[in-house]
Order: sequence, then structure tokens, then C-alpha cells
Amino acid sequence: MKTFMDDNFVLQTETAQFLYHEHSKRLPIIDYHCHLNPEHIAKDRKFDNLGQIWLEGDHYKWRAMRTNGVAERFCTGKDTSDWEKFEKWAETVPYTMRNPLYHWTHLELKSAFGVTKVLKPETAKEIYDECTAKLRTPEFSARGLMKHYNVESVCTTDDPVDSLEHHIALKNEGFSVKVLPTWRPDKAMAVEIPADFRAYVEKLSEASGVSISNFADLLQALRVRHDFFASVGCKLSDHGIEEFYAEDYTEAEIEAIFNKVYGGKKLSNEEILKFKSAMMVEFAVMDWEKGWTQQLHYGTIRNNNTRLFKQLGADTGFDSIGDFTVAKNMSKFLNRLDTENKLTKTIIYNLNPRDNELIATMIGNFQDGSVAGKIQFGSGWWFLDQKTGMEAQMNSLSVLGLLSRFVGMLTDSRSFISYPRHEYFRRILCNLIGNDVEQGLLPVSELTFIGKLVENVSYYNAKNFFNF
Amino acid sequence: MKTFMDDNFVLQTETAQFLYHEHSKRLPIIDYHCHLNPEHIAKDRKFDNLGQIWLEGDHYKWRAMRTNGVAERFCTGKDTSDWEKFEKWAETVPYTMRNPLYHWTHLELKSAFGVTKVLKPETAKEIYDECTAKLRTPEFSARGLMKHYNVESVCTTDDPVDSLEHHIALKNEGFSVKVLPTWRPDKAMAVEIPADFRAYVEKLSEASGVSISNFADLLQALRVRHDFFASVGCKLSDHGIEEFYAEDYTEAEIEAIFNKVYGGKKLSNEEILKFKSAMMVEFAVMDWEKGWTQQLHYGTIRNNNTRLFKQLGADTGFDSIGDFTVAKNMSKFLNRLDTENKLTKTIIYNLNPRDNELIATMIGNFQDGSVAGKIQFGSGWWFLDQKTGMEAQMNSLSVLGLLSRFVGMLTDSRSFISYPRHEYFRRILCNLIGNDVEQGLLPVSELTFIGKLVENVSYYNAKNFFNF
Amino acid sequence: MKTFMDDNFVLQTETAQFLYHEHSKRLPIIDYHCHLNPEHIAKDRKFDNLGQIWLEGDHYKWRAMRTNGVAERFCTGKDTSDWEKFEKWAETVPYTMRNPLYHWTHLELKSAFGVTKVLKPETAKEIYDECTAKLRTPEFSARGLMKHYNVESVCTTDDPVDSLEHHIALKNEGFSVKVLPTWRPDKAMAVEIPADFRAYVEKLSEASGVSISNFADLLQALRVRHDFFASVGCKLSDHGIEEFYAEDYTEAEIEAIFNKVYGGKKLSNEEILKFKSAMMVEFAVMDWEKGWTQQLHYGTIRNNNTRLFKQLGADTGFDSIGDFTVAKNMSKFLNRLDTENKLTKTIIYNLNPRDNELIATMIGNFQDGSVAGKIQFGSGWWFLDQKTGMEAQMNSLSVLGLLSRFVGMLTDSRSFISYPRHEYFRRILCNLIGNDVEQGLLPVSELTFIGKLVENVSYYNAKNFFNF
Repeated sequence: MKTFMDDNFVLQTETAQFLYHEHSKRLPIIDYHCHLNPEHIAKDRKFDNLGQIWLEGDHYKWRAMRTNGVAERFCTGKDTSDWEKFEKWAETVPYTMRNPLYHWTHLELKSAFGVTKVLKPETAKEIYDECTAKLRTPEFSARGLMKHYNVESVCTTDDPVDSLEHHIALKNEGFSVKVLPTWRPDKAMAVEIPADFRAYVEKLSEASGVSISNFADLLQALRVRHDFFASVGCKLSDHGIEEFYAEDYTEAEIEAIFNKVYGGKKLSNEEILKFKSAMMVEFAVMDWEKGWTQQLHYGTIRNNNTRLFKQLGADTGFDSIGDFTVAKNMSKFLNRLDTENKLTKTIIYNLNPRDNELIATMIGNFQDGSVAGKIQFGSGWWFLDQKTGMEAQMNSLSVLGLLSRFVGMLTDSRSFISYPRHEYFRRILCNLIGNDVEQGLLPVSELTFIGKLVENVSYYNAKNFFNF
Repeated sequence: MKTFMDDNFVLQTETAQFLYHEHSKRLPIIDYHCHLNPEHIAKDRKFDNLGQIWLEGDHYKWRAMRTNGVAERFCTGKDTSDWEKFEKWAETVPYTMRNPLYHWTHLELKSAFGVTKVLKPETAKEIYDECTAKLRTPEFSARGLMKHYNVESVCTTDDPVDSLEHHIALKNEGFSVKVLPTWRPDKAMAVEIPADFRAYVEKLSEASGVSISNFADLLQALRVRHDFFASVGCKLSDHGIEEFYAEDYTEAEIEAIFNKVYGGKKLSNEEILKFKSAMMVEFAVMDWEKGWTQQLHYGTIRNNNTRLFKQLGADTGFDSIGDFTVAKNMSKFLNRLDTENKLTKTIIYNLNPRDNELIATMIGNFQDGSVAGKIQFGSGWWFLDQKTGMEAQMNSLSVLGLLSRFVGMLTDSRSFISYPRHEYFRRILCNLIGNDVEQGLLPVSELTFIGKLVENVSYYNAKNFFNF
Repeated sequence: MKTFMDDNFVLQTETAQFLYHEHSKRLPIIDYHCHLNPEHIAKDRKFDNLGQIWLEGDHYKWRAMRTNGVAERFCTGKDTSDWEKFEKWAETVPYTMRNPLYHWTHLELKSAFGVTKVLKPETAKEIYDECTAKLRTPEFSARGLMKHYNVESVCTTDDPVDSLEHHIALKNEGFSVKVLPTWRPDKAMAVEIPADFRAYVEKLSEASGVSISNFADLLQALRVRHDFFASVGCKLSDHGIEEFYAEDYTEAEIEAIFNKVYGGKKLSNEEILKFKSAMMVEFAVMDWEKGWTQQLHYGTIRNNNTRLFKQLGADTGFDSIGDFTVAKNMSKFLNRLDTENKLTKTIIYNLNPRDNELIATMIGNFQDGSVAGKIQFGSGWWFLDQKTGMEAQMNSLSVLGLLSRFVGMLTDSRSFISYPRHEYFRRILCNLIGNDVEQGLLPVSELTFIGKLVENVSYYNAKNFFNF
């Protein structure tokens, strides 16, 4: 019987253990997509207690608590203390067995705090106190945690209108971890509500210094900001899309659509799709011009629960996996860019694992030999960021593409103690490959190369691909 | 090498064996969804022979036989004896290796009759005779079998117009197994064929004593029957739907649609969808008022084979898995009810396993902390009621929700010897969890809690959730 | 630790090893679907070198090379030598670990050439020279390889206008391997581009001797060719379709559509679908009349990369998995034929594995007991022709149908050294079943029958089903 959470956690075979301990665990972390608040890094935020660092904003935990019958006030309530929330979380933890939260919780306790006890009602107080005491020491500040976890670089997620003041401050200061922005211009194509779009365009005008009265101005303003992001070290864009937008359109149509929505008129569904289709191309071309990598996160249905959305707002745990038909549009979007020789490095993330094989083959259509692994199948995203999900993604990529060229893991997290997700990923990777070796599906004679492959997927592929 | 069908069948590890034998196998069975004929229980049906109890109405077996090249007369024919059919079935059994029928057959032989021989042409006569002899003893009547299998309660599936006379008789008589009805009002929204709908409405009028001439009357009549079902102990509804119906509609529209179809006019597809959308809401609200649990079985394409449908009718083995797009409508349906604070406990069953992850996340959107596991992902249904299907459902639920709050297994069966499906499920559950413990993915130190979790999913969750 | 590529490659248990070595490996190969060039067999083609036989036309390898950052000239370039291409391929091979190419490569080296070294840059020259020397001996001609691999019969893929001269020559000559044509009439329903269709119809007219001026003539010409194919030993048809076409249509409509497109006018999308729907029925009925088996390969999105399509043409590695909605049309198509009692033996191949369960149940609707396994779920196709894909297909078929009646493997290949894919398939089959036996999921007491089952799926089912 293997021991829970010991040094060989997840690693079922000796080869897996060898690969992890000798070829993976010591490598730095490149977290090329996350949602950390750059201000927290710049100001080196300290945390009051374990309840705060764990439960503030963590909709994964809230979902589990609600499912476990915990009332909303103990999830998001303003009238309950961090300890009260934590207590309810600790009650819930045993009920999360087999859910990634159970592993994440204990990996975080162990790797951040050195706590190896199992969290449950009986141990809740003790663990809370021990971790809270540690959190109040300087080593456990935002920056302290980043250094503790051997983070080399992180890419936050930022709006084009953002001043990037914290990124600039960190750069000027010479903070040892590279903290780079990511260009996430979703709002610049969110034309569903004319007033919101207009307000955003006005902000963009202000941020860019470009006065905007037509579509060309909009692009010009975005381009100014794109250049600015580049000057602060940005190398990636990110797009949250339900589906792939690939309608046919003319310039004249897009100009007219812009004028209509900017003028306050509601667009038809067709107009919205055309506009987004055009913007996705414009964004992609900007990224191609600078050699950036575009990231496409698709397939979520957000804010399913209207009652609780009104109460709590977005990103509070009411999102879910959609079942969109995407292959032809995904192909058309990528092909449109490739046809003009303007397809930049791209990472596609899906939320419904039933599309894993579709994506793993789709990326193959646009690999043109110019860059190894030019088009990437992104690591298990959100709901799929768990052992089964990551295994499924890596297995699909392996049999339908090249695992060896995979840029690997990212946290996608808002938390400074989510870095063990990289550890988890690396253990899972080593376990898959180790099993293959022990089953004679890969040759043990090539263990040196296999070790290098593990190092590449753990770290070097991302390092070479993004070139931060 | 493990032995086929021994005490540790399916249980690969010692922990799995411990969990099953110490925490699961002795618990009673709550079969909260089945298709038993209540008359057979009330009248304590006896069976003539093994051919009859096994092959009468069992479309799973017929499908396998047809695939194996067996002529229809040996499946459903009226001119062939039970023995002749059984003989063809016994010939087919070895060809069903790796199909759940192979396991079900031998689990049923062992658990009902104590027969541990493998069924094949060479053993057919002997097994037939031995089991037939036992079937003719009082212990093998319908009720005898239910008691033999330690059944605590069963919920049959009943039409609103049903008199429930057998349920009432059983209740009055004080039969030790609770036999409760389930409200299945599919026909009340089956408006595709006006004449059939009209005929049904007339039956409903008679059963309810409400004269029906408009939509409000229809609802009133249904409500009378709903109350009546409640008085007989009903706690669940069930709905067989192709897709989720969530069209927008107005009361006036629905009234007009009712009048049109009731008047004998064929509805447009849009009208049909609107009507079903409205009815699904009305049904759901009735269930919410009484604290019932609604069950939604979606995604089948029925009666694919017209030639054999004409010959044999429905439910004869010609149904299959559909590929409907459902996420947005499923969300809209549940959200519509939740918005009005009228979303009752709900179980969603899918037929296409490619939707497992979709559902496992969708239910999370409507968990509001009021009841643990309020919205449930139903156990592997129909074609998915087999080892791979149940494992996939439990694994998806585990990583995307809380397995610990799962209400577990049901037979969905027409047969009195299908109860070993609960045993099969429990073995599979214990095997999954046992493997996790032995692989160090769950802490063996928490075995007491894990044992409780197994007990809950085997029995107590259903007991507490339905509150029969 | 198991050894890579030894005699027990893939076979994890002793039972698996027993089944493979005693019941599978010695059986001849029936390759009932491939893309070999019959001229190469008739003229007994010799190969210049390992680079040529491996890289000429192999879009699987090209895709991997492009993904690995290899420039196009080393994939398909005319200005690079076979050795230069091979060298780039050898560099890529280690990067294909976990992709089927890694297994195929080493299986082919071992089974064709007796080379057991791992291919990588360090061994490239040595392996190239050794294999090239062998390729220049008579045993390594096209026919030599077919005999080496114990091939009993192959079915090539041929257009109705093809003269079948090479098939006839081989038949007359009495070549020991049966080389039969397959009827693949895709172009006869490719009405998207009127001029192309017209040109094809003219060729068909010439080949059949039927002058074609209306739809009835078209059918008559096809029928003449269908008869001719039958006279050369054809027993199978094959259809490459994106989706299942099952529109309603009238004869008059189809006649008008034919006249329109034949007259050079572009058809509407609806007309195209109607025409294809009609043709699929006509083709199916012809097959039924002759007792042939129809094969349906659906779900690809072809030629996704326009830039490289213009440069390289079709079948160069730019195809991918689609996400079509198919269940209702698949059912309607099969049912339409069944209703008229004209549904012939059928094999359905899917490209998106998310449809595996859908198909495994769909085929059950049309099994009528007339032929064991009348409607087949085809073995993992194209991207799915790998260990995970084949396992998924066999597991779905097992739990939702009868694995025992499966007609098994085919290469679908253009190469004379792809026959080890049958070996790979058989090892995977034996491994799945062997694991089940060792885990007590199948009874070891029935090992004789299980051995027979393995023999059937490896060889005898195809032999009996196609009856070449």
C-alpha cells in the first residue's frame, strides 16, 4: 500500500519516481497563465490567516461547500469570520475525497506549511493556528511564497486599459521573479450591451490617448496599448470565448456594426458574431506581428445561476462545461490566419473533455515546421485541471500529436499557494511515462532521452517557446 | 489470478474487499427507480421457469441474441417455448463475454439460485432445471425474491391516471418492503399526435374527476392526481425526455396550444417545444411544493427500427444513444426554477457518456447549500448501467463534484432478480475507492471515514435524501 | 519491468501472452480495407531504400515531423533526397514517444527487417543501410512482403471508373494472395462543383459504355460498373462521408437536381444533401442485391490548411476530427433501408471517439438475427488506429454489443509494411481479454472458448463475414 502524500505521491512505479525526483522536481516554475493580482506582488501582500488565503475568492471551494450543504454565508458571507468559514471548509474537506480539492488542500498544506496532518474537523483548529502563525512571518508574504516555490516567471491576466503600474514597478525594482502582463482584450469585443461597450471604448481612448470615433480608431487605440504591453514585457494574449467566431465579413460591415453599437443600438446576433470574428482576426494579427503567443480558452457557459449571480456577481462558482460545436469554425479561424501567413503561436484550451481528440488533431493541421509545437493543446483547464483531466489531455496529445513538444503546466490561479499544481502535474506526467516504461511500451534503454523529455515538458519547452 | 464470481468479484485490492464486506454488502437495498409491475408484487407472482423470468420482456437479452444471429422467434416469438428461448439464450451467453449481460447472468444465478456453474450450451439444461425447480418454491415468488435480496423500499414507475390500487393494497396489508409509486406524467405532455393526447386527457379527467376543457383544467386535474400519488407515499417524479425543453413562452400561448391540440389540430414543432417547456416547469413546481425529487432521463432515440417496431411495439430493444446538444437548455430549465426559488431536489440521468462531465459541472451551479447533494448526477443509466459506465459516472462525479453525497444505485429494471445490480454497483464503488487508498491517493488513516462514505453511497444517502 | 518490443510486447499478463501466442499470432491476415496501389502488386514493386518505403506518401509521419519543427522540404520536398528525409524522420522518432508512430516504427523494423535497435539520430545511418540492403533483395518486393506477413487477402479501394486491370491480371496469374477491389463511388455523388461532376460522369459513361443524360442513366452506368466490380471479386463498398445524409426526397427532385448540376449550375446546400441522400440509398441497395458489405467512414474535416493544400494537394496531413451531430440521420439512413428489407451488412467507422457509445448502440437497432454481427462498429480508424483508440472501440463494443462477433482489424494503409498493425491489434485484443481473465472478470475455466473468441476476432469472423 502506498502512503498518502509522501515523497512518491502519485508515482506508482520506480521509473516514475526516478523521473520525478531526478528530472523534474528541482526545475523552476514558469507560470505562463495565472490570475494573480499584480498589486499583491508589488506591495508584497501579507495574509491574516489560513481562512483568508484559502477561501477568499476560491470558487472551487465554495462549490464543494454548497454541494456539501453549507449555507452561503459560510462561503461568501460578509458576516462570518475567516475562522467560521474555515471551520465549514474543514468539515467539507473529508467529503471532497476523490475531488482535486482533497489533493490540492493537502499538497498546499505540505508544500507551503510543512503540515502533513489530514485536514478534518478534529484537526481544523490546530492546522489553522499553525498555518496562520506561519503566514504572519515574512517568508509567507506573496513574494516569499513565490520564491519558496522556485517561481521563475509568472504572467498575469490584464485588460488593455490597465496601467500595468505594478508590473512596471516590479520590473524597475528588479524583483527576482519575472512578473509579466498578458493582453486580455475580451471587453473590446463585448458588444452585447451597447452602453457597456461604449464605456469601455471611452476608457480605452483615455488609456491610449487615441480619440475613437470609428472602427479604425478602435484598432489604432488597441494597437497603441498592444505596443505598450509589449514594452512592459508582454508575450502572450488570452481570449475567453464561448465558441470560435469565424463568420465571413467585410470591412464595411464591421465599420457599420461598430458605428451602430457605439451609437447605442443593440446588435443582432449575426452582427455580434461578425464583429467578434473580425476582432479575433485583428487581435491575432497584432500578436503575430510581435511574435506573441495567443491563448484561446473556449467552451464555458458562465453565470448559470441568475439568483446567485445577482447576489454574488461573476466568478463565484456558477459556471459550467458547455457542449458547443466548434471544429469547423476553429479550423476556419486558424486557416484564415494561416492563409495570410499570419498565424502566430497558439494555445487552445477546451473545457469539455469530449473535444480532446478533436483539438489534438486540429492543431496538427497548422503545424508548419516553423516552430516545434507551434500550435499547442493547452493543459487541462479549470474543471479539467485535475488528475483525470490532465491525464486525458496528455494521453490525447500523446497519441494524436507530440507530448514531447508540450509547453506544459500553468496554474490559472488567483492564489499564491497554488504552485503545487505544477508539482501535481509533474508527478502525473512522470507517472504516465514511468508506467509506459515499466510496461515495456517505451524503451528503458532510452531513459536519458526520456528524462530530457520530462524536463522539457516540466520547464524547458515553456522557456524556449515563450522566450520571456 | 482472481477467481471469477467469487466473494471478491470485482474487488481488486484488500482495501476494496474490506470496504465491501465490512461496510456495504449487508446494507438493505433502496431501489428508488424501477419498472416492476406492482400487480406482480401485490399478487405475489410465481414464475414458471428460468426462461420466463429471464427472457420475458428483457430487451437487453434480445438485442444480444439478435446480434448473435438468433432469429426473432427465439427472442419474442409466441410460437416458441420458454425452454427453446432459453436454449438460444444459453448459446448466446458465451458470446456476451465482456458485456454486462455476462456478469448479470452469473451474478443472478449465484445470488438468487446459488448456482455457480458457468452458463453455456453444455450446462443449459441442468441450470434450467435446477433454477426452475427453485422458482416453483414459495421463497422464489416476487415477494420472496424481494425479501431474499434485503430490499427495504422500491419505487415503481406509474402514470398519473393509474389507480395505484396495488400500492394501496400493499400498504394496507403492511408488506414489509415499502412499495411506492413514482409520478411519470410523460403522456400529459405528449402532444405530437392530437388524438392520442385527447384520449389521454380524457382518461386523466376520469381519473381525477376534473372535467378538462382548457389548460388550467389540465393542470388542476394533474394536481389532483399529484396529491393522490402523494397520499400513497410517492416522493419522486420521473420524466423521459429526448432533450431539455426550455423555450420561452407565455401563458396565453400555452393555453392556445392546448386548445389547438385538444381540438385535434397538429402542432408545429415550435408549439410542441413550448408546450413541453411549460409542462416541465409546471411538473417541477408541483414536485417542489411537496418536497419531492424530480428525475430527468434524457437523450434516448427510441424505436429506431420501424419494421420491428411495427411487429413488436416499443421497449423491445431498438433504442439507442442520441447526441443532443443540451447544456444551455439544461441550464435554462434549472435556472428558471431556481430564480423563482422553486427548484426541487433533482436527479439528471444522461444516456451519452460524452455528457458526463457536462452534467457533473452543471449540477454544481444549482447546489445552494440547502440540502447536501441537492442536485444529483444519476447513476449510469440503461446502456451505461455496466462497469465501465458506472465507473465513468462515479469518476466524473468525483472529480467535478462530491461522490460522497451521491444517492447511488437503482435497478431501473422490470425483473425481480435484478437486485444484484446493487451488489455489482457496490463492488465497483468499493473497488474504485479501495484502489485509491492502496495507491496512496486517499489516506488509509481515514479508513473509518471512508467506510462511512461507502455506507452512505450504498444506502444512507438515499435513505436521507428521499426520506421514504 | 517489461522489455520494449519483445515477444510479449503489450501483453501484460500470462493469460494475454497465452492467448496471443497460442490463439492469434499464427493466423493469416485478412486486410479487408486498405489503400494499396494494385499496380504495385501486379508489377511487384521493389523499393529503393527505407526512406522511400517509409516516407513516400506517409502523412502520419509528415504531421509528426512538422510538429517537431521540421521544414516542409524534408517532408514532401522534391529537392531533398530519401536519405535527407529519413535523417529528419530519425531525428523526430524519439519525439514521437507515446504516439503510435513510435510503436509502428519499431514493430515494422522488427517484423519486416529483424532490426531490434531503437531508431534515433545515432542509429539512423546503420538502420537505413541495413534495411535498404534488404529492400533490394527479392524477398522485400511488394509481393514478398505480403507473403512474409502471411496475408491471405487484401481489398484495395477503387473508383467505379477504374479498369481493375491489375486486379484482373493478378487473378489470372493466380497470385497466392487474393487482391480484390472495393467499390468506392464517392465521386459519383460529389456534386459540389458542377464541372468536376460532369467530367466524372463523362468518365463513367466511357467506362460503362452507357451514355448518360439523366439520373436513370447515371444509375444504369453505375450498375454496369457495380456488376463489373462483382465479376472481379469485389465484396465491399466504401464511402467517405462527412455526415450521414438522410434528407427526404422524391425521385422527381433528384432527377431535377441531376439535370441542374449536370447542366453546369451550382446546387444549393439543400439540393446537395438531397442528392447525396438519394445516392447513398441507391448505392446501399446495389450492395444489398449482391450481398456485399457497405463501409461508411464518417466524420473527417479534410484539407483544413488551404495554404498547404494548394501547395501539396489532398491527403498530405491536414485532415482532422470533426464534431458532427449524427445519431438521428444515421438511424434514419439505416432504417430507411431496413424498412424495405434492403439493409445489407454494414460497417460504420467514426473518427471522433466521443461517438463510440452512440455507434455501439446504434448498430444494435439493426441487428435482426439474420447474420451474426450484421451491423458492425468498425475498428479504430485513422487517428483512432492506435492503442488507446482501439481499446476504446473494443471496450465500447464489448459493453454495448458483442465483441465476440467483431470482424476485427484492417490496415487502411498505403504501405506494404503496415501489416504489423494487425499484430498490434491482436496483442491489444489479447491483452484486454487476458487482463479480464486474470482479474476474475472472465472465467478462466472457459479459456478454450476464450481462445476461440480471440481466433474469431483475429481472423475467422472476417473470413466468414466477407466470404471472399
